[in-house]
Amino acid sequence: MADTYIQLQDFFQRLSRIQHAIIFLQWDQLVMMPPGGNESRAKSIAELSSMYHELLISPALADLLEDSKNHKYNDDISRSLKEMQRVHLQAKCIPADLVKAKSLAGSTCEHGWRQQRKDNDWQSFLVNFKEVVNLSRQEAMARQAAAPEIHRSPYDALLDLYCTGDGSELIEHIFNKLESELPQLIGEIIENQGETQLQFSGPFAIEQQLQLNRKLMDCLHFDFDAGRLDESMHPFSTGDAGDHRITSRFRTTDFLDALLATAHETGHASYEAGLPRHLQGLPIGTSRNMCIHESQSLLYEKQLFLAKPFLKYFTTFIHDLLPQTVSITSQQIWEHCTYVQPSYIRVEADEATYPLHVILRFQIECKLINGQLEAEDIPEIWDDRMKKYLGLSTAGNYTDGCLQDIHWTDGTFGYFPSYTIGAINGAQLFNAIKNSAKDWEEKLMNGDIAFIRNWLQDNIWSKASSLDSQEIMQQATGEGTNPEWFIKHLRERYLAKR
Amino acid sequence: MADTYIQLQDFFQRLSRIQHAIIFLQWDQLVMMPPGGNESRAKSIAELSSMYHELLISPALADLLEDSKNHKYNDDISRSLKEMQRVHLQAKCIPADLVKAKSLAGSTCEHGWRQQRKDNDWQSFLVNFKEVVNLSRQEAMARQAAAPEIHRSPYDALLDLYCTGDGSELIEHIFNKLESELPQLIGEIIENQGETQLQFSGPFAIEQQLQLNRKLMDCLHFDFDAGRLDESMHPFSTGDAGDHRITSRFRTTDFLDALLATAHETGHASYEAGLPRHLQGLPIGTSRNMCIHESQSLLYEKQLFLAKPFLKYFTTFIHDLLPQTVSITSQQIWEHCTYVQPSYIRVEADEATYPLHVILRFQIECKLINGQLEAEDIPEIWDDRMKKYLGLSTAGNYTDGCLQDIHWTDGTFGYFPSYTIGAINGAQLFNAIKNSAKDWEEKLMNGDIAFIRNWLQDNIWSKASSLDSQEIMQQATGEGTNPEWFIKHLRERYLAKR
Repeated sequence: MADTYIQLQDFFQRLSRIQHAIIFLQWDQLVMMPPGGNESRAKSIAELSSMYHELLISPALADLLEDSKNHKYNDDISRSLKEMQRVHLQAKCIPADLVKAKSLAGSTCEHGWRQQRKDNDWQSFLVNFKEVVNLSRQEAMARQAAAPEIHRSPYDALLDLYCTGDGSELIEHIFNKLESELPQLIGEIIENQGETQLQFSGPFAIEQQLQLNRKLMDCLHFDFDAGRLDESMHPFSTGDAGDHRITSRFRTTDFLDALLATAHETGHASYEAGLPRHLQGLPIGTSRNMCIHESQSLLYEKQLFLAKPFLKYFTTFIHDLLPQTVSITSQQIWEHCTYVQPSYIRVEADEATYPLHVILRFQIECKLINGQLEAEDIPEIWDDRMKKYLGLSTAGNYTDGCLQDIHWTDGTFGYFPSYTIGAINGAQLFNAIKNSAKDWEEKLMNGDIAFIRNWLQDNIWSKASSLDSQEIMQQATGEGTNPEWFIKHLRERYLAKR
Repeated sequence: MADTYIQLQDFFQRLSRIQHAIIFLQWDQLVMMPPGGNESRAKSIAELSSMYHELLISPALADLLEDSKNHKYNDDISRSLKEMQRVHLQAKCIPADLVKAKSLAGSTCEHGWRQQRKDNDWQSFLVNFKEVVNLSRQEAMARQAAAPEIHRSPYDALLDLYCTGDGSELIEHIFNKLESELPQLIGEIIENQGETQLQFSGPFAIEQQLQLNRKLMDCLHFDFDAGRLDESMHPFSTGDAGDHRITSRFRTTDFLDALLATAHETGHASYEAGLPRHLQGLPIGTSRNMCIHESQSLLYEKQLFLAKPFLKYFTTFIHDLLPQTVSITSQQIWEHCTYVQPSYIRVEADEATYPLHVILRFQIECKLINGQLEAEDIPEIWDDRMKKYLGLSTAGNYTDGCLQDIHWTDGTFGYFPSYTIGAINGAQLFNAIKNSAKDWEEKLMNGDIAFIRNWLQDNIWSKASSLDSQEIMQQATGEGTNPEWFIKHLRERYLAKR
């Protein structure tokens, strides 16, 4: 019989092959599949997901993991075993009945929400949502009970699914800093900025935009022999070793939205493509968590693409491929893409106001899951925070208030913080990269981004899940996630001469 | 515990969901996947195929099938059980070692063949090929031994994988008729036809061709809400309930190749889309065999698309979408697409000479698998038959002779006959359709093909695998596969005034 760890490797590689199938069936569903395929596709994905889950919670795996404790392994293998144990436990600690009930309640709530949001109908939403909250609380408690030494509250147990290793205490500490500084900083930024004057002279044909976005990906060293760009309703990134696919969303009236989305998704895809190939299929070989993932996408979008010298370099391609834009300067594009304005909708928010949207949600979902707040009290606290943070009231306006996001409708609690921790990490990492290459502006002006990719490859991508996210940040930048770098970034970008 | 048959239904539906995943992963591999994805894709497909196979040969399934014999079921269920038993046995009767050895030898031989064909290197090919023949003979004997009451020879057991139900005795009888009549008929056809004069004034842009081919599919009532057309190296058709995908091959120098391929693949896809939805996932709900499948594709390509009134109707769209073709008449297109000329290469052969290519292969592979001929003797018999049937010698020319096809390289013996049985069935079915609608020419002239689809839906597609293929032909046309209809078709098309 092979060594226990070798058997475990085989086991997880087998799981990853089923995962591969699910990943590309879902990609196809969103990008290629005609509507008629929905029923058979849903059944096939459900079947594979169930097979995957059964294997992951199987006694055979549990026995191997148990047996591995009888062996002395080196640090690398011990770390790998820890990650195996973690994903096994995460799958095993929730009773099958609860998984099913939550999935059903989530589907019902999300389905109803699509119309209820349009109808500003909080009361009808609340009926379904209370059941989602109820079941999410049960899930959170079950997860906490399975690893009480790791999760200091039920909410922390959900948070750990997305922000793995970054607990609510750390996040609260970071968010307190932003909460206290951002509202005033935003006021200063708005005072400092001019009007954005950019007028688009479209239409911009999708085919030309696809070409332009592929050019951007080329400039960002995306390997088209190991990936694709396609169009979809919502931009996303997915894939498996050797095949990383992103999508962008194209409108004929605007060409910048798609470019920003493409830069963002290329960041996600570059991280995935940079994971160590020899760990492929193992939990330790996967991306660390969404706080690191989002740091890569936001670094590509906000730090790299919107770095003035790079944008200036890339604007020549915009002029080439979309000749209608030839009179628009890179400065105008930059001003347009960095325009700050408090608004109701998170997904449309600029990088300065965005964290306040997230902090508001974090505060609510943390209390909600830990039982210190009830679902019916959300609109009031939402309105209160929106006024305090952004000077906007959502009283009676659920559509643009607490009904705007899809996340909570199916019980995805604990995800929101990763957007802002990711933004901070992105700013902090980019600062370290600039420190590592004093001529960074000159490089970017010439479209040379190899120094960025190499730095990220060495400091982030190659680490995969072999370190906690705070360890990754610490080793890469000399300290854990520190919001000062994000605030410094905002000050430099928005308060200096624009 | 649910009834045995209900448990069996669930079991096979589960299998069909794994099959669904394999189908679309393979489609993606051929149509969308970047080259870098090959390794992880191959592993994922192998994993799912292995899971599929394990379930199909599992004792759990064997027990259910055994138990079903203790019940009294109606005819429909009994027939369904028979098909379940058949696919279970087909998977179970080959030892796992043999499957693996044949797969390996097949890969090696096919890989070597790609270069050996170019090099006209029969001797090097022979080394690998003898092992493929050896293992295929073992497979054939194992298959025959598992159902000796069905297969009268080892070759029949392989034939049954593709021509299910149409044994070698029947096929030999049919082919004898063609063998005795076709060579002379081809001579008469060539004497009767003029020169083809068609000059293409391309280039024809792929994007426009895609539009034109989608228009053709529209005319053939292909439902784009339940399917797609894409480009690939070799045209093919695949899919699952509600999602039927075909591909075509486009060249900028010619627009007719793609249209013929699209008509052909639309025939395959229409059959699949017309299978009864309530039997989805069950063996009895699948297409009958390749002899019926090819009858549908060839009916669409050779009978329907090349029916003069339909082609005349469709030529207006060709003129509209490819304005360079406006001076080409539908008569010229028709003459070009029905030009008969003996040639070396099967895949480029016209419909009159094609059967002789197939008969030659049938005669060889039948003897080869049954041990009455050795691999080294193939070139001689090939040359002999080519001279006899088509007046062409392949002595010393392996590239255009016995090395031209991919089928035998990986041990796919028993497939070739389905091309010609399909062509005969297609002619026979189209004759019955014309008899059922006396105004068929007028209908086709107006692009009305509903009567064809409805007839095929009632007589072929709805039958799925609930009847043997000869029963399907009998019920649909009043007799089993009869080569006279094919010869009648050739006489009418090629010997009357063109």
